[in-house]
Amino acid sequence: MKKIVVGVLGAGRIGQVHMNAMKLNPNVRIKTVADAFINEKIEKALKPLGVEYITKDANEIFKDEEIDAVFICSPTDTHYKFSISGIDKNKHVFCEKPVDMDLGRIKDVQSKLNKSSIVYQVGFNRRFDHNFRSIRDTVQKNKIGTPQMIRITSRDPAPPPIEYIKNSGGIFMDMMIHDFDMARYQTGSEVLEVYAIADALVDKNIAKVGGDVDSAIVTLKFKNGMIGLIENCRQAAYGYDQRVEVLGTKGAVSIDNDTSSTLTLSNTTGVIKEKPLHFFLERYKDAYMLEQQYFFDAIRKNKKAPCGIDDGYESTRLAYAAAKSLKEHRPVGLSEIK
Amino acid sequence: MKKIVVGVLGAGRIGQVHMNAMKLNPNVRIKTVADAFINEKIEKALKPLGVEYITKDANEIFKDEEIDAVFICSPTDTHYKFSISGIDKNKHVFCEKPVDMDLGRIKDVQSKLNKSSIVYQVGFNRRFDHNFRSIRDTVQKNKIGTPQMIRITSRDPAPPPIEYIKNSGGIFMDMMIHDFDMARYQTGSEVLEVYAIADALVDKNIAKVGGDVDSAIVTLKFKNGMIGLIENCRQAAYGYDQRVEVLGTKGAVSIDNDTSSTLTLSNTTGVIKEKPLHFFLERYKDAYMLEQQYFFDAIRKNKKAPCGIDDGYESTRLAYAAAKSLKEHRPVGLSEIK
Amino acid sequence: MKKIVVGVLGAGRIGQVHMNAMKLNPNVRIKTVADAFINEKIEKALKPLGVEYITKDANEIFKDEEIDAVFICSPTDTHYKFSISGIDKNKHVFCEKPVDMDLGRIKDVQSKLNKSSIVYQVGFNRRFDHNFRSIRDTVQKNKIGTPQMIRITSRDPAPPPIEYIKNSGGIFMDMMIHDFDMARYQTGSEVLEVYAIADALVDKNIAKVGGDVDSAIVTLKFKNGMIGLIENCRQAAYGYDQRVEVLGTKGAVSIDNDTSSTLTLSNTTGVIKEKPLHFFLERYKDAYMLEQQYFFDAIRKNKKAPCGIDDGYESTRLAYAAAKSLKEHRPVGLSEIK
Amino acid sequence: MKKIVVGVLGAGRIGQVHMNAMKLNPNVRIKTVADAFINEKIEKALKPLGVEYITKDANEIFKDEEIDAVFICSPTDTHYKFSISGIDKNKHVFCEKPVDMDLGRIKDVQSKLNKSSIVYQVGFNRRFDHNFRSIRDTVQKNKIGTPQMIRITSRDPAPPPIEYIKNSGGIFMDMMIHDFDMARYQTGSEVLEVYAIADALVDKNIAKVGGDVDSAIVTLKFKNGMIGLIENCRQAAYGYDQRVEVLGTKGAVSIDNDTSSTLTLSNTTGVIKEKPLHFFLERYKDAYMLEQQYFFDAIRKNKKAPCGIDDGYESTRLAYAAAKSLKEHRPVGLSEIK
Repeated sequence: MKKIVVGVLGAGRIGQVHMNAMKLNPNVRIKTVADAFINEKIEKALKPLGVEYITKDANEIFKDEEIDAVFICSPTDTHYKFSISGIDKNKHVFCEKPVDMDLGRIKDVQSKLNKSSIVYQVGFNRRFDHNFRSIRDTVQKNKIGTPQMIRITSRDPAPPPIEYIKNSGGIFMDMMIHDFDMARYQTGSEVLEVYAIADALVDKNIAKVGGDVDSAIVTLKFKNGMIGLIENCRQAAYGYDQRVEVLGTKGAVSIDNDTSSTLTLSNTTGVIKEKPLHFFLERYKDAYMLEQQYFFDAIRKNKKAPCGIDDGYESTRLAYAAAKSLKEHRPVGLSEIK
Repeated sequence: MKKIVVGVLGAGRIGQVHMNAMKLNPNVRIKTVADAFINEKIEKALKPLGVEYITKDANEIFKDEEIDAVFICSPTDTHYKFSISGIDKNKHVFCEKPVDMDLGRIKDVQSKLNKSSIVYQVGFNRRFDHNFRSIRDTVQKNKIGTPQMIRITSRDPAPPPIEYIKNSGGIFMDMMIHDFDMARYQTGSEVLEVYAIADALVDKNIAKVGGDVDSAIVTLKFKNGMIGLIENCRQAAYGYDQRVEVLGTKGAVSIDNDTSSTLTLSNTTGVIKEKPLHFFLERYKDAYMLEQQYFFDAIRKNKKAPCGIDDGYESTRLAYAAAKSLKEHRPVGLSEIK
Repeated sequence: MKKIVVGVLGAGRIGQVHMNAMKLNPNVRIKTVADAFINEKIEKALKPLGVEYITKDANEIFKDEEIDAVFICSPTDTHYKFSISGIDKNKHVFCEKPVDMDLGRIKDVQSKLNKSSIVYQVGFNRRFDHNFRSIRDTVQKNKIGTPQMIRITSRDPAPPPIEYIKNSGGIFMDMMIHDFDMARYQTGSEVLEVYAIADALVDKNIAKVGGDVDSAIVTLKFKNGMIGLIENCRQAAYGYDQRVEVLGTKGAVSIDNDTSSTLTLSNTTGVIKEKPLHFFLERYKDAYMLEQQYFFDAIRKNKKAPCGIDDGYESTRLAYAAAKSLKEHRPVGLSEIK
Repeated sequence: MKKIVVGVLGAGRIGQVHMNAMKLNPNVRIKTVADAFINEKIEKALKPLGVEYITKDANEIFKDEEIDAVFICSPTDTHYKFSISGIDKNKHVFCEKPVDMDLGRIKDVQSKLNKSSIVYQVGFNRRFDHNFRSIRDTVQKNKIGTPQMIRITSRDPAPPPIEYIKNSGGIFMDMMIHDFDMARYQTGSEVLEVYAIADALVDKNIAKVGGDVDSAIVTLKFKNGMIGLIENCRQAAYGYDQRVEVLGTKGAVSIDNDTSSTLTLSNTTGVIKEKPLHFFLERYKDAYMLEQQYFFDAIRKNKKAPCGIDDGYESTRLAYAAAKSLKEHRPVGLSEIK
């Protein structure tokens, strides 16, 4: 089988996650990594990943005719231009979420894609998690009857640095965007309306910096009649808490967190089980692999990406709607967000 | 110890639950039961409960100077007048929830109680459930740090008959009122604002009859800064689902449902545990007993009831606020409900 | 319904457990308690239990023609003579286990019972535990197919005082006797052969005093073809551990310990659930009640006791066989024990 | 880093497992695979594994000076001669269990290894399972105090074909050998004595063919004072059941089975969780990888293998001792087995 030749934009943490996964794929070749802020430490980290060439200039990737596909793992504000370049140069694009914080620019990408035949996949890694997929399968096999309510819980082990939060676009764009996508993925339905309550309950400094929040509950009304909610918190002392529950007419289905072992320690304190896997790199390790497999598979078989620009667009709209709801203290219809 | 002499108003299901519990209390004597709709079947059911005298006339209880305390277990629309009679006749009153659907009348009872020294307890039985108490204890012992979010799930095994629903006052007054009380009980805080989404997802007929709903999510903002949510459904195929989870700065605490045994059956279907106890009579059996003990203890020791007219008033206001929110499609502040 | 009049022999801990349960039974009257070592403290404890008369002389009970039934809750070395007196005086007998440590004397009781029509029940309380009953029901309903293997785990929270152990008859007679009965109860089969390994692993002093052990594993071959094992330890730091698991051709069934609530606390230590209920009084509280109900029901309906002298005899034989196996370092057939 | 060049003996299921794992290791090169029964189907399966050369002649591997290490994945009766050839040709050897069914021949290998500096690892894959390792870590960190009792459960989802059983060496050599190794691994102690009870409870035909059994319980006395037991069954309708529990003076530690997801489905049947992962290929997938890492790491760093010829020898002795115990119907000391 001819190897798929890949160029990677951005050699930071998430870029390395993708390259680690590609290293294990004998049918993929990482030809070039471009990172404007490349340094010795990063170069060293790339060594064992089988990267052939490292540059500061992203254009070297786009101009390289041998490269079939690009992974956009650079800072969010570069996603748009790299997406456009990729499409223009007829390269398949895997773009980390969010595509952009500006809906207009996402629409641009959408338009360009309508005239292109490349595969464009957005990095909603959670769709490829074994637990979340098992929920969806169970619902689709009609094991809980008609689904009625969905509940999504997503809590990080600890808040990121204030500096990160400043540029994050806020909790809805930075954190809950995954859950908005999860809501659409699990229900197979668009959302009609959201309402948000939220506050800075973990760290008051988060509120000071641009009025962001760290704890939020958002209710959802779905086009298919379901109702639901998303619950986010930037901090859970016990670790990364990622759960979904769906109630239907014939039963309910839920998933619990993954742990590093099934150990139970019984002592004078209690009957103690392991904490959830610490954070997304541990929890979604296999999901990142599967996500890639779907991308490469779509390329080889000329299929649509399992989640594409529309998913990127809709989840971003939902983030805007939730932010607007919080600001205006009222339910916000998605029809208001364009 | 001198026995406390009791008169019971209403000999239906909940009245019998209370009498069954009293039967096991050697320091209580059930002198009279009054029920306007008494029939042979009920009389037969009362036999083994040690009831001394049965009448259709509630006044026989209020006029009886030997009777120390009354249990109001009659239909909701009689709670008010029986409460007033009890207070007037200087009898201790245990009143099933809700005290009344009219806030003004609850205020009346409140005013009368201000000038009385009797014990007046409202039947929020869930406050006496071992699981819910263990959550509260854990939070109060500071084991999860400062509480930030609360989530209350309450699902019935099956919807009541449409006839019942017609006169129920709607899901917020009939079902969620318990959860509103639970929210106040667990947080120790009043609620400032609610927002409700809801629909008839279980049975469309419920919507036809007076526009009621069977599935609802209500968000809550608390005076102490916490945020929270309540989730209700009239039907869960797997049984009575009663859970609470609280997240705090140092951890989270939750309870799961009670089951009739700890059995696990492993077969080709899966690893199967017992369903939740079927409904409130099973789940809250011990809670009804403990609730009574607190009532009788308050009488003997001249203490305040563990939950009284204020709790009845506040939970009813919350039910009104949620109904108003649903109707007006906007968040409703509690200050609007008087 | 005419009340059953009861006399209780022995006012210690287990006697009080039984009287507490009887107090809640409106159809039972505790007329007399006899205890040779009665003291003020015990008398005080008996007050709230509704006991009418207290004496040091057991004969006052046996001579009292009004008394229908006796509960033998006195020290083990008195069980035999009180059983004989009870049968002779035609009183129904509830006898705490073990009936006696001497098989010949148990046979005596057996012979006398053959000529009597009284109800004679032995206090194997665990047969009335909701969890153990649910295992048995599941197996009997053929939900695991043909049962093949059984595993019984029984661990106490802490060893009793050395003084108690000296007179206990050893771990097999004092502790494992319950599990031998459980093995027969769950399988519905007699045991053909046992083999024991054991040691004093918790407290070496237990070995010094008469060569007893505190940790033991016994394998069992059953007449119905099943194989099994019992595991005992005098100490489990996390509390009273009482489990059974049965494997069959179509699946397996097991029960876990009961806890005081379904609480889960998640913090930096882990995901922590409650320890098992501390000890037998807590764990088997309801079982003691149900055990009594069966006894009184057998009396009223002229039925056989749910566990009788044969069960007392067989479990004692098993204890002897296990002790012999340990001593002689070989498998011991039950046919050797007479 | 110079790649380690590997030759694989045996291209069947377990050989392919190892090659699949090696394929993901960029520092290992599979040069040659030798299998006397190679056929087109196998050749096709080897294609995607990156195998360079396939032969029927094992000697091509041993004569090849470029090859650093061999994996012996061929039938058990070839393990001995391939081990000897490997040592003679100074190649590192990874040998699947059992090394041989004849203790004398294992001793031969042992003697040869005493004069060699190669790494010789035996394929006790379960030592590398995350769950079993977490038990061991917990015990070694003194979290349960001094360990006293160990219980090992190992049940296959379904019995192998009768033909396989005929040549398997019996349940103790074929199946329980893993558990004997686990017992030594978890306790860090040798076993002094075993006693076995067993029968053909799953399939009577297993007994007909050479008197084998399919269900067995073996008790163990350890040199360090612990007592323990192993429980095996060739069939568990719910899947591959692999558990260990250790009780110590300060608590107990146990592991439960792995599942493919954390899904819970609640419906009218019950609260249903996933069955255990089906069989060893699924359950020990990661363990096979880790096992290899340890082997290659030992080669590179000139370390001893994490489990070697002594472990192979001792577990085989235990299998003989258990078989002898069953046959002679008595406890058998390990000192009897030479």
